[in-house]
Amino acid sequence: MRVKHKKWADPYLESHPETVSINPTEYKGKWQNRFEKDQPLHLEVGMGKGQFIIGMAQKYPQFNFIGLEIESTVAAIAAKKAEPLALPNLTFVRADGAGLDTYFAEGEIQQLYLNFSDPWPKTRHEKRRLTYKSFLTNYQRVLVDQGCIEMKTDNMGLFEYSLQSLNNYGMLFDGVWLDLHHSDEQEDNVETEYEQKFAAKGQPIYKLRAHFK
Amino acid sequence: MRVKHKKWADPYLESHPETVSINPTEYKGKWQNRFEKDQPLHLEVGMGKGQFIIGMAQKYPQFNFIGLEIESTVAAIAAKKAEPLALPNLTFVRADGAGLDTYFAEGEIQQLYLNFSDPWPKTRHEKRRLTYKSFLTNYQRVLVDQGCIEMKTDNMGLFEYSLQSLNNYGMLFDGVWLDLHHSDEQEDNVETEYEQKFAAKGQPIYKLRAHFK
Repeated sequence: MRVKHKKWADPYLESHPETVSINPTEYKGKWQNRFEKDQPLHLEVGMGKGQFIIGMAQKYPQFNFIGLEIESTVAAIAAKKAEPLALPNLTFVRADGAGLDTYFAEGEIQQLYLNFSDPWPKTRHEKRRLTYKSFLTNYQRVLVDQGCIEMKTDNMGLFEYSLQSLNNYGMLFDGVWLDLHHSDEQEDNVETEYEQKFAAKGQPIYKLRAHFK
Repeated sequence: MRVKHKKWADPYLESHPETVSINPTEYKGKWQNRFEKDQPLHLEVGMGKGQFIIGMAQKYPQFNFIGLEIESTVAAIAAKKAEPLALPNLTFVRADGAGLDTYFAEGEIQQLYLNFSDPWPKTRHEKRRLTYKSFLTNYQRVLVDQGCIEMKTDNMGLFEYSLQSLNNYGMLFDGVWLDLHHSDEQEDNVETEYEQKFAAKGQPIYKLRAHFK
């Protein structure tokens, strides 16, 4: 998510090390120490302004959640939003998703979320898509055996690509929804900021749940 | 495809054994004998009134085509439509798709098409869907190694189901289109009767191309 850079963002991140990690490699294999309880760890890569991961942390206190975001300003907005809630099962990381296996130990993550990722529509940018095979390799590394990915997007091209990419990688589909908001799956759906905006326009939201073999 | 039964249909089929097989088991392993040339064999399961398979046979003279349909009246309409064209690379079968492996020898088919199949939306009818695993087993049996299936549908539920079913079976996706008629893939698309009708209403047409491992 690209937003105008705010001057207060970097100082905010630096002054809140207890809620936002900017050097996540130092917690590799030790993420449970950042939470009140030792419980399954769910990770969102590219959390944007954090509405989804905050909502998930509120809805599922039996899991720990990490929201990862590359952009300082966006990460700071998410952290600031979560601050008054003081959720004991939520923490943030400002870092590049491409380095995932340097931040997390093998099998440290229980489940992974990709929401409304940048579609990078040009073929020459394929390698930047968060469902490109090199990313999948990294996800598999940090996830538990048969670990699960949930992705949502409003971008048809990215969804077509992702269905093929995850399938070709050998992942097994647990569910496919071509119009999430008019399906039974919507009942438990925690929405992102983008999702609310797009769905309001009547555009279908796509969702895929799949796990590694 | 269900249409009102026409009295002329069965007599027509019986009097045209050179274009419509009603006892396809007798040609098992010998289908090439029914064509002018020995060339790769493409099969459509559930051809309806035959517009697609006739169009394919005209467009690709380098392949042989078989259109299979369970309903006598529909099969007869297709055969009658093709009659004046006298295409040397097209023949028809009036039979139940469930018996595919009794009509064709192992590896006899090069490629298989499923177009706008009955969605059988009720869960208790899952086994009747042409992308249910028992059908896939039969398709794999009659197809060449790494044989390919192309499916098209306007039915969202059937497409969601089929993506998962083919994936879970271990098939590899070669392409997924969530709006075929507004994609590059449309250029070579041969349309079915249903497809023209649905697409005219602005409904998206879904397509999947996948092959067995």
